Amino acid sequence: MSLPRIAIDAMGGDEGVRVMVEGAALARRRHDKFQFLLVGDEARIARALEAHPNMRGASEILHCEDVVAGDELPSRALRRAKTTSMGLAVNAVKEGKAGAAVSAGNTGALMAMSKLALRTMPGIDRPALAALLPTLGDNDVIMLDLGANTEADARNLVQFAIMGAAYSRIVTGRDRPRVHLLNIGTEEIKGFDRLREAATQLQNATSLDLQFDGYVESDKINRGEVDVVVTDGFSGNIALKAIEGTARFVTDLLRNAFTSSLRSKIGFLVSRPATELLRHHLDPNNHNGAVFLGLNGVVVKSHGSANAKGVANAVAVAARLLEDNLTQRITHDLAELGEDRLRVAPGNSGATDEGSQ
Amino acid sequence: MSLPRIAIDAMGGDEGVRVMVEGAALARRRHDKFQFLLVGDEARIARALEAHPNMRGASEILHCEDVVAGDELPSRALRRAKTTSMGLAVNAVKEGKAGAAVSAGNTGALMAMSKLALRTMPGIDRPALAALLPTLGDNDVIMLDLGANTEADARNLVQFAIMGAAYSRIVTGRDRPRVHLLNIGTEEIKGFDRLREAATQLQNATSLDLQFDGYVESDKINRGEVDVVVTDGFSGNIALKAIEGTARFVTDLLRNAFTSSLRSKIGFLVSRPATELLRHHLDPNNHNGAVFLGLNGVVVKSHGSANAKGVANAVAVAARLLEDNLTQRITHDLAELGEDRLRVAPGNSGATDEGSQ
Repeated sequence: MSLPRIAIDAMGGDEGVRVMVEGAALARRRHDKFQFLLVGDEARIARALEAHPNMRGASEILHCEDVVAGDELPSRALRRAKTTSMGLAVNAVKEGKAGAAVSAGNTGALMAMSKLALRTMPGIDRPALAALLPTLGDNDVIMLDLGANTEADARNLVQFAIMGAAYSRIVTGRDRPRVHLLNIGTEEIKGFDRLREAATQLQNATSLDLQFDGYVESDKINRGEVDVVVTDGFSGNIALKAIEGTARFVTDLLRNAFTSSLRSKIGFLVSRPATELLRHHLDPNNHNGAVFLGLNGVVVKSHGSANAKGVANAVAVAARLLEDNLTQRITHDLAELGEDRLRVAPGNSGATDEGSQ
Repeated sequence: MSLPRIAIDAMGGDEGVRVMVEGAALARRRHDKFQFLLVGDEARIARALEAHPNMRGASEILHCEDVVAGDELPSRALRRAKTTSMGLAVNAVKEGKAGAAVSAGNTGALMAMSKLALRTMPGIDRPALAALLPTLGDNDVIMLDLGANTEADARNLVQFAIMGAAYSRIVTGRDRPRVHLLNIGTEEIKGFDRLREAATQLQNATSLDLQFDGYVESDKINRGEVDVVVTDGFSGNIALKAIEGTARFVTDLLRNAFTSSLRSKIGFLVSRPATELLRHHLDPNNHNGAVFLGLNGVVVKSHGSANAKGVANAVAVAARLLEDNLTQRITHDLAELGEDRLRVAPGNSGATDEGSQ
């Protein structure tokens, strides 16, 4: 099967053109099926391409001069959707000139442009940002939403669960990924109606290709016992960044410890293969590529500070979702949910009433 | 100055009597000023005391047979406030028989009992749970609320900031601790009215003994640049547990890496002093002792799985807050806030209107 090409916003991210092009080239060294539409300043892209002969014949340049700034308000960026590298990369997906878009630029602007150009899928009220996180188990865990929606009601959470499970089936190969709702431990607390409602709906939706295992607390996300963690974008962003920050904190402490004396430096050198393994496991570049789920098209957000290896991973994520038809899978699951709802007796659950509106 | 004695719920926690008594004894070995009221099964406490001759003459036993279960609903536990070791320890503070209470039992039950017996301070609408977390900097960071209130409005958040800053001044010695509101990076998102309102109020309250530095994201909590992180209990609990879980995750990976080959085992042994330092820095027992702020009395929650060293730390936290008159400090700051409000011109800020109700 030939893979639709991938549009790359070559101007986004802290490092810009060089890293984006190098990342695409790296991805293509792994799978030569990749074809690219590189969007941005033609002269700079051409210069960056000189170092990567394997990209010749595999990439087309779409020139533009305008760039979305990293700290720009999404509403402002949105007005330049037709002139910026980010906007044109997303637009290429809309017009069928590319199958997916990858950008390392401003997350809020990318979300706004993607929503406007690609629209949400039928049956999805709000798209969500999903990412893979490392675990102690055999496969990564998917967490969503990570900031596309600050708040989420029960109906949104159920849709996030379906989208996350579809993504997890592709990544883990499990037929029924283990889905949990993120919650805190305290009982009898206010503000959880939406979580309880979502739990009821997911428990009732037995025909879905997922196994709903109730709540999970944020200290259990990475134990390897959970495949999908569902939450609102505020909590998800807080959890994601707390995880990232703590991983960096511990490795910083480790570096300080290992360089604190000659003895520890020697010990570090001796055990280097082991610490390299750890570094590899924790390197955010190896988990780079968050996905906007729920749109009519695949858009992947690469971390602003990702290196070429990170960008290559984000490209690989986009390719995988195209190959495995993520969008169609979600459509199929939403249809299943529709049938489930019909099976629930009227008045059986207030939560289902809300969900079936 | 003689220190009021500290009531210990000897029955709470995963390990129960032995660890609680050993922790108290350990605290007393460091400071012989400590006096204890040990609440729980008299025979078991007496047996545990046999191993600690330094506790003789420093502790009184208050016998009771009833214990709050770890998974008990707070509302149910509350009915047995007068018969359980937890309830009697808190009650001893109310009746002036102790200056502070320490329990490793059910957090929700401890919160409910403490609120009922001690009541919130004048000027505080809701108490908050605060804890110290390690950083790369010179001092720990205080985060609150960690789960006492799932939701918090602007007025609650401002009160949390004042209470957290008072605690931070004691711990860090800084005159004006750097206070931040926990937020996520995305701009122009819904649901943040309460955060913006709290930020406006804190910016205007210039006479407070704190330096309000705006928002912080959860990956920056432990960089050493922030003294107090203010948030609602849901987000705070998610951030706290994500931090704890990730620290454990990374040390588990490290252990796996170091035991993966003979070479790495040797390297580990050589660099042991360095890794011990890291372990010490990350050991949750060294940061044990979360405080319920905003009550008419000091109540400290020890982690259910804390060892004796952890319990000793929780006791030391209680003692420090007694010595440094935390409750009076908060009262003083609330009065300052009152004056600040009068100085703000009417109609100058909608946020202040709400805050001054």
